[in-house]
Amino acid sequence: MTEPASTESHVFKCRVYYEDTDAAGVVYYANYLKYAERARSELLRELGTDNSALLRRHGVMFMVKEFAATYHEPARLDDALQIRTRISRIGGASFSAEQRVEREGRLLVGMKVRLACVDARGRPARLPDEIRLAFAT
Amino acid sequence: MTEPASTESHVFKCRVYYEDTDAAGVVYYANYLKYAERARSELLRELGTDNSALLRRHGVMFMVKEFAATYHEPARLDDALQIRTRISRIGGASFSAEQRVEREGRLLVGMKVRLACVDARGRPARLPDEIRLAFAT
Amino acid sequence: MTEPASTESHVFKCRVYYEDTDAAGVVYYANYLKYAERARSELLRELGTDNSALLRRHGVMFMVKEFAATYHEPARLDDALQIRTRISRIGGASFSAEQRVEREGRLLVGMKVRLACVDARGRPARLPDEIRLAFAT
Amino acid sequence: MTEPASTESHVFKCRVYYEDTDAAGVVYYANYLKYAERARSELLRELGTDNSALLRRHGVMFMVKEFAATYHEPARLDDALQIRTRISRIGGASFSAEQRVEREGRLLVGMKVRLACVDARGRPARLPDEIRLAFAT
Repeated sequence: MTEPASTESHVFKCRVYYEDTDAAGVVYYANYLKYAERARSELLRELGTDNSALLRRHGVMFMVKEFAATYHEPARLDDALQIRTRISRIGGASFSAEQRVEREGRLLVGMKVRLACVDARGRPARLPDEIRLAFAT
Repeated sequence: MTEPASTESHVFKCRVYYEDTDAAGVVYYANYLKYAERARSELLRELGTDNSALLRRHGVMFMVKEFAATYHEPARLDDALQIRTRISRIGGASFSAEQRVEREGRLLVGMKVRLACVDARGRPARLPDEIRLAFAT
Repeated sequence: MTEPASTESHVFKCRVYYEDTDAAGVVYYANYLKYAERARSELLRELGTDNSALLRRHGVMFMVKEFAATYHEPARLDDALQIRTRISRIGGASFSAEQRVEREGRLLVGMKVRLACVDARGRPARLPDEIRLAFAT
Repeated sequence: MTEPASTESHVFKCRVYYEDTDAAGVVYYANYLKYAERARSELLRELGTDNSALLRRHGVMFMVKEFAATYHEPARLDDALQIRTRISRIGGASFSAEQRVEREGRLLVGMKVRLACVDARGRPARLPDEIRLAFAT
């Protein structure tokens, strides 16, 4: 995962609560995907829209089609995390993002995700222009 | 919580996985509500229906309106649990259940729950007759 | 649930993400307990401590022993929620709180919770003085 | 992902409940990782051990270091799923598995996971011989 320029990546702050941890004393491996999705949702919100509005106004939503993660170090209870998100590719009906879970600048988990734009029945749909424009700038 | 006759209560078996536990080494308190909901879903299935069919055929679903739990002892990773469910009241548009999380016959968590029957918009709806009949027997 | 004076209650802000919702289109009933626990954790943090520090410095943690909720209206995707927490009782080895999930001042879920202070083995422990003092003021 | 011979793969059955779904009406993308972990836990159990015993007897546990998933089709409420697990590589201090989430023989999600064997402090540890032997046969 290449290091994105800091000016290009969106930062979402996230605290680790008991719900996120497991009996091994660390954040459960599936829960980093929740952090990633929260970060993508907040990125949308900062671009002036959100998942509910996309469905209401454009009849579309985003579905994860591919996901990959490398777990370097675990996060623990009460950790203050930063989730960095960089849109790495914008296609006709999908986009990709690189996301990093960091604690004090240190990479804990690196993730790559590809999302498809689909209609209410799950069929591929064109990325709305407002999203395409917002991602490009 | 009165002890229901064993012939009257439905038993659902449930294993504790990492996802259920937290950094305190025990099952996270919210996750017992998942076990309880799984048990109610399986009770429906044994009565010959399920949540999807209720919505498709009758346009209704069940929403929890009141919930109370007493946590006696924690469950831990790899525990084999039994969730006992007894329908304690059947009303016109709601029903109540008493549910017990047990490990080898020992009560870990006792729960009481009241569920309303609602239509797709969340408005109160009459309990379908097939459910009423099934619960009564 | 009596309305606590606004000066007495702690407010935690919380956004609803996809992870919180279910196929009924609303927040899954167990997930309000996560919001409640996050709010209690942030209350501790504002009092100058946190769960990790309590365990490290005093060898204690808080375990929920009783919980009750009344669900008035559901929260939905992208909702901005406020979780109000008021400490309603401080005992020798436990405390109680009233918690409200609100959206724009409207009560969605009312909760009452009693937590025991326990040591690492789960045995009752005296509430640390720093907590007792902080809660009282 | 190559199709493992049916004799080589472990099958775990799993039902979709409300807790697993989200407001898009499908299983939330992070929750397939829970199914995968349940399946790996049950595979261990069928080999005569479990996560708790590994920690107690050998002082080790398994931590996911790499994970990748391709989401082909979504699972929905009340679906009966099969999780197929095949150990694809056994190393000195780690192993890899290929896991498939299927519904009536149809592939919904394909996953690859690499797990490290670590001690209680998270340092690499040798795979216990009982595990190595069991995986190999």
